[in-house]
Amino acid sequence: MLLALDLLGIFVFAISGGLVAVRNQLDIVGVVVLAMATGLGGGVIRDVLIGAVPPPALDDWRYLAVPAGAGLVTFLWHPAVERLERVMNVFDAAGLGMFCVAGALKAHDYGLGPAPAAALGMLTGIGGGVIRDLLAGRVPVVLRSGELYAIPALAGAAVAATGVELGVRPAVVVVPGAVLASGWRLLAFRKGWTAPAPRVSPPR
Amino acid sequence: MLLALDLLGIFVFAISGGLVAVRNQLDIVGVVVLAMATGLGGGVIRDVLIGAVPPPALDDWRYLAVPAGAGLVTFLWHPAVERLERVMNVFDAAGLGMFCVAGALKAHDYGLGPAPAAALGMLTGIGGGVIRDLLAGRVPVVLRSGELYAIPALAGAAVAATGVELGVRPAVVVVPGAVLASGWRLLAFRKGWTAPAPRVSPPR
Amino acid sequence: MLLALDLLGIFVFAISGGLVAVRNQLDIVGVVVLAMATGLGGGVIRDVLIGAVPPPALDDWRYLAVPAGAGLVTFLWHPAVERLERVMNVFDAAGLGMFCVAGALKAHDYGLGPAPAAALGMLTGIGGGVIRDLLAGRVPVVLRSGELYAIPALAGAAVAATGVELGVRPAVVVVPGAVLASGWRLLAFRKGWTAPAPRVSPPR
Repeated sequence: MLLALDLLGIFVFAISGGLVAVRNQLDIVGVVVLAMATGLGGGVIRDVLIGAVPPPALDDWRYLAVPAGAGLVTFLWHPAVERLERVMNVFDAAGLGMFCVAGALKAHDYGLGPAPAAALGMLTGIGGGVIRDLLAGRVPVVLRSGELYAIPALAGAAVAATGVELGVRPAVVVVPGAVLASGWRLLAFRKGWTAPAPRVSPPR
Repeated sequence: MLLALDLLGIFVFAISGGLVAVRNQLDIVGVVVLAMATGLGGGVIRDVLIGAVPPPALDDWRYLAVPAGAGLVTFLWHPAVERLERVMNVFDAAGLGMFCVAGALKAHDYGLGPAPAAALGMLTGIGGGVIRDLLAGRVPVVLRSGELYAIPALAGAAVAATGVELGVRPAVVVVPGAVLASGWRLLAFRKGWTAPAPRVSPPR
Repeated sequence: MLLALDLLGIFVFAISGGLVAVRNQLDIVGVVVLAMATGLGGGVIRDVLIGAVPPPALDDWRYLAVPAGAGLVTFLWHPAVERLERVMNVFDAAGLGMFCVAGALKAHDYGLGPAPAAALGMLTGIGGGVIRDLLAGRVPVVLRSGELYAIPALAGAAVAATGVELGVRPAVVVVPGAVLASGWRLLAFRKGWTAPAPRVSPPR
């Protein structure tokens, strides 16, 4: 059940990577590599930082097959995939919630305190998209668009990290953490809420 | 003997990094850093992912001296080095074959199954070039050019990874794996074979 | 005392990351993430390469709070921060000296020889800025500007790495290594000394 949810999140993230690759006119290698990097990148960065190597993504062939398949699907049928993009946003928000909570809990398991665990949870949620954008030659969307994406992820991860630090069982903190991150993200997307940008100084 | 071949592959990859740096008007630091990152990057990424740290590139001074020397050679005599570029393509294909097979075998040694080992073998072959291009501010060539580069590397790595998984001795799988990757790469380069790109949807 | 110096260096580097983010019109997430990546990136790369994971930056909340605070300060008061930039150059040079020496000594502690330790010391000093520039979508300044930044860092790290290799106590090699790197960097900045760039071949 958890594995299926995890693979679903990876699949959705990977589709977003494949679409960015298609739009930037990469070839089939680029589409599959961006799909895999987007689906797996956040978790792999977290695993390397906490010393959980080789990461599970390299221990179980399904973790490679799912994002590679998402890349091939996007390569072959990208016009159809693009028409599903509005629906995908719901799944992407769900994936974000799962990834940030799972990242925070795994960091806690490896002995990290609540603040680093929350930071690594956020990184698990946004890391794949950052790698995707770097490979596609653009400044990561999550750092510049003003969309509420990283902040809900950090909030959800912080709830989970604080909960387990206080002795609450992981299974209990998963739901509020993931719902907070996914719900806030989705509401912000629907309502157009944005994160603040620096006030621009007038040019001299 | 193996060490000499390995260092030769690193040298050739490093030259390609140095040339990209010169063409992008980097300074001497950029030329040497790009040479070293291109020569060593693929292997270092693999080693970090499987937990083989510190990587051998940091345990033996020759692994630093060879790509640093390649960078300095490129910095000082880049017009001459550029004239050798056609010859270099042969050595680059040979390096690709060695790197992808060595990467797959090392991943197998660290307990990875055949699919992840093949993926890491490919990553060993293409990783240095990806880092080179990111540092030079361009979308990695291997992801967009349509050249057959990553696919032959994956094929060669898959042959080696499957072979050792089936119990064949490493020394026996090296040759077919490397010859497949290098030969396919070189033939594709000569004949102009390309990997498919996504069909572009007509603009609406 | 050492912790305070370390945190000061991280703070100054983080401010430079925040300023680059503001100038590239990133949002608040981008400003804080670039500040943290610039302040912590060099040390984290070193720690991952030598196997010192989780890195101290994830074990002590102050290592996260200081660069995050620097990011928020830059976000809120960037016009004032920019006016301090000339002063900041002095602190940045001091941070560079400390980082390259501390990086070299830590690499030595993990069993690396003097050449790799010196290389990792330099990487500790410049790595954060490289990540900052990649995330901001520009070719790393340290690779192209011709400014003497990486070379003084390498020299300082080499002094420290060679010293401890010869049996000198770490406390004794810190000062000459850091003074060499910081002083050379600052003098070069003041006097406009530059590193050589490749001679450009005339276009054909």
